[in-house]
Amino acid sequence: MSFYPPSLVNLIKQLSKLPGIGEKTAERLALHILRGSVKDAQALAESISEAKETVRLCSVCYGLADSDPCHICRDATRDQDVVCVVEQGTDMVALEKSGAFKGRYHVLQGCLSPMNGVGPDNLRIRELVERLKKGKIKEVVVATGTSVEGESTANYLRQVLEGSGVKVTRIASGVPIGGDLKYTDALTLKRALDSRHCL
Amino acid sequence: MSFYPPSLVNLIKQLSKLPGIGEKTAERLALHILRGSVKDAQALAESISEAKETVRLCSVCYGLADSDPCHICRDATRDQDVVCVVEQGTDMVALEKSGAFKGRYHVLQGCLSPMNGVGPDNLRIRELVERLKKGKIKEVVVATGTSVEGESTANYLRQVLEGSGVKVTRIASGVPIGGDLKYTDALTLKRALDSRHCL
Ligand SMILES: [Zn+2]
Ligand SMILES: [Zn+2]
Repeated sequence: MSFYPPSLVNLIKQLSKLPGIGEKTAERLALHILRGSVKDAQALAESISEAKETVRLCSVCYGLADSDPCHICRDATRDQDVVCVVEQGTDMVALEKSGAFKGRYHVLQGCLSPMNGVGPDNLRIRELVERLKKGKIKEVVVATGTSVEGESTANYLRQVLEGSGVKVTRIASGVPIGGDLKYTDALTLKRALDSRHCL
Repeated sequence: MSFYPPSLVNLIKQLSKLPGIGEKTAERLALHILRGSVKDAQALAESISEAKETVRLCSVCYGLADSDPCHICRDATRDQDVVCVVEQGTDMVALEKSGAFKGRYHVLQGCLSPMNGVGPDNLRIRELVERLKKGKIKEVVVATGTSVEGESTANYLRQVLEGSGVKVTRIASGVPIGGDLKYTDALTLKRALDSRHCL
């Protein structure tokens, strides 16, 4: 690596700090950037600075936003009495893409994970409780993941919100639409059977 | 994607222009950058700008350099009468790492590839011929790759340099050191047999 000019070595080092980018990949990316136009390199450098400067967490829902409150929290046409609780901003984006939810969100910024030292205080749970105290919200849809951590986070929320007067629901889990039963794992099949309903 | 703030969408777009980075990976990298510190994001943005500003091609060997001539071309302790011809700056770095070569380099900036529209005029072959005319160089070691394109580039160079009074040699090819014969492809084995020598 020291056979490259120092500024190239530094670029490779910076790129290899990104997740999933090893030194070989970082070298390939760096050489690609150097081969490309100055305009492209500047566009990339500026997009990093600009995103970092402008993207903030919404102080209401803690989703990624460039305004505060974010455009979803400000949107008067959306249901104000239903809040969908998700782990990450990316989950919120996935739900928005589906077009299936027209309420507001609350992004926990993770899920309970004692193994990784993530407890209730590391998540935006206190902020959710405060939000509910304002009285507008009638239902909390818990849309944390279906992993062990996601499920235990959902159970924790159920306990915390018990007696708050707010309806707490959980998204359904089961065989994915278009999913083939023979390729569906045993736990999912068990859940799909346990949650069966009349046709 | 449009569910993200515009500056984040732009960052994802810029990252996904990099080779081997799809939209999903770009999204993951962008979110990682946003989660990280402002200092880390600025270090990455600046390393891109700085490398792009400072890294140039050496006007003697066409290798990547931050000075002109590069440190190898300026190094008086290196053999000035042997030049190793490689396809890319990365090949030069690989040879430098091996420590096996103490002469100068000439980086073609690619290899002949009629399929991709790369002809002799797209490579630094004319510049090599000019370099040889100065008379200091006694041997040209052709170290282009052992792919079909690398071999045909080597053959082309042999023809071009014929009668120039300069010795033209080719790096050996065969079974890699530490390589197991049963995992070595047929073409390599054939070459290794054809190029056998007395022990
Ligand atoms: Zn919001
Ligand atoms: Zn040079």
